[in-house]
Amino acid sequence: MIGITQTTNGTYWLEEYENNDFKASYKVTKVLYEDKSPFQEVGIIDTELFGRVLVLDGIVQTTTLDGHIYNEMISHIPIAYHPDPKSILVIGGGDCGVVNEIAKYPSIARIDMIEIDEKVVYASKKFLPEISGNTSDPRINFLFEDGARFVSEHPDQYDIIIVDSSDPIGPAEVLFQPKFYQDIHQSLKSDGLMVCQSQSPIFHADILKNSYSRIKELFTMTKCYTATVPTYPGGLWSFTLGSKKGYSPNPSALSKQTRYVDDEILDSAFILPKFLKQLLKDA
Amino acid sequence: MIGITQTTNGTYWLEEYENNDFKASYKVTKVLYEDKSPFQEVGIIDTELFGRVLVLDGIVQTTTLDGHIYNEMISHIPIAYHPDPKSILVIGGGDCGVVNEIAKYPSIARIDMIEIDEKVVYASKKFLPEISGNTSDPRINFLFEDGARFVSEHPDQYDIIIVDSSDPIGPAEVLFQPKFYQDIHQSLKSDGLMVCQSQSPIFHADILKNSYSRIKELFTMTKCYTATVPTYPGGLWSFTLGSKKGYSPNPSALSKQTRYVDDEILDSAFILPKFLKQLLKDA
Repeated sequence: MIGITQTTNGTYWLEEYENNDFKASYKVTKVLYEDKSPFQEVGIIDTELFGRVLVLDGIVQTTTLDGHIYNEMISHIPIAYHPDPKSILVIGGGDCGVVNEIAKYPSIARIDMIEIDEKVVYASKKFLPEISGNTSDPRINFLFEDGARFVSEHPDQYDIIIVDSSDPIGPAEVLFQPKFYQDIHQSLKSDGLMVCQSQSPIFHADILKNSYSRIKELFTMTKCYTATVPTYPGGLWSFTLGSKKGYSPNPSALSKQTRYVDDEILDSAFILPKFLKQLLKDA
Repeated sequence: MIGITQTTNGTYWLEEYENNDFKASYKVTKVLYEDKSPFQEVGIIDTELFGRVLVLDGIVQTTTLDGHIYNEMISHIPIAYHPDPKSILVIGGGDCGVVNEIAKYPSIARIDMIEIDEKVVYASKKFLPEISGNTSDPRINFLFEDGARFVSEHPDQYDIIIVDSSDPIGPAEVLFQPKFYQDIHQSLKSDGLMVCQSQSPIFHADILKNSYSRIKELFTMTKCYTATVPTYPGGLWSFTLGSKKGYSPNPSALSKQTRYVDDEILDSAFILPKFLKQLLKDA
């Protein structure tokens, strides 16, 4: 599997590089799944410290240790911001953790998930049930297509669009381009809002700055928020929310079926450290 | 140097293990300092991604990339909680970053720093000026002694005691024992407060739970707060504050000479994720 090497003592390690200057290595207790799709190599490994791990082209995507932090932050927060969300589109999110979170809201009628790589969904359903959860909910429509093309062809459809992409290399590269944000804006209803993962404020500050400024150009309200996701480089991870209308969050709308997000996190996630406020001011 | 290995392509890496299941590797561009003290091996390396790094017995202690986050959180927060701090004791803190932060407050008359290992202070002053800063402030008294013994012999002396220890192995082990917290309590004035770093809530939850419950047994007010420090395992790091009196923080008392802490962080740092609230409830 890409990224897995065997050491001299016979143990196997998944090695993930950051800029060739830092390396995170996960001891692999078992390779549970390994396949090559038209888009990438899809793998699921088991580890002692992080539990099961979804790996795409050698890069850790989510783990059973902390996947819920990321998935809850990118789902429940936008839902609490929209006054009456009925239809949600998830772009990417192949581990199914996001649709699983959204399905906790009975008021949401339509959940479309558009993931380019069917193999990621297959592997996650089979080997990551702790993350993918309830994928049999009849409101969830799985579409295995190009998310960028899909939004360009479906105007005025959704209350919320969630961009749960991998890093901006490989199949997800297009999900960080200006045209994509314009198409998302167009695919949202006139009172809709979007959220995307916008990478590490420390190690990928340029990407966050770009995403934030592109969203700010298009939307009435733009807000960045963060959470600490232990397996992502540097721990601190950013999300950017863009809304066609200025909304205040409604803490009482939050599902109680969460392990991380609650009404306090809904507030505190938007309180940014000084360096990050400065970064976004310059954006 | 402990922990540094050479790979087959000739590059040098500092390898730090977490539980033998996860390894963080830092590419070393230069070893700036390396010496053996009676307590540990002290090293300073240069890296591309994290800048200069203080390493004790092969474990990363602080870096010029994010040392300020940790040092500001463990210094400015307790200062904002005490209504009139005049005398502060720092236990550990050999990189001098904490005394550098404290010295930003003109109202503080006495800053005692008790570090067991003089070589750490020597190396940090010489090679980490970005962290150690203004160590020539005449209010700072450097004492190279055993901090645990010192507090047991100096009752009723300090408004604030800051425990800036390394991990609870090696010379810092004693700084996590019940007797030590009792001696700190005794070394504080009747309206004093203490703060300690209490490790990762994710990877060292037991240590946090122990520190928190020991402090809670002794002090009137006990509060845990967190910050994301990218170079520490899992990113999320905890601090525990114990106070003999119930205080509210005074945001206007905060120094403006900070890069991370401000009045908003002073509030939001105490808002804990659900899993951490539960952990402390069980403590």
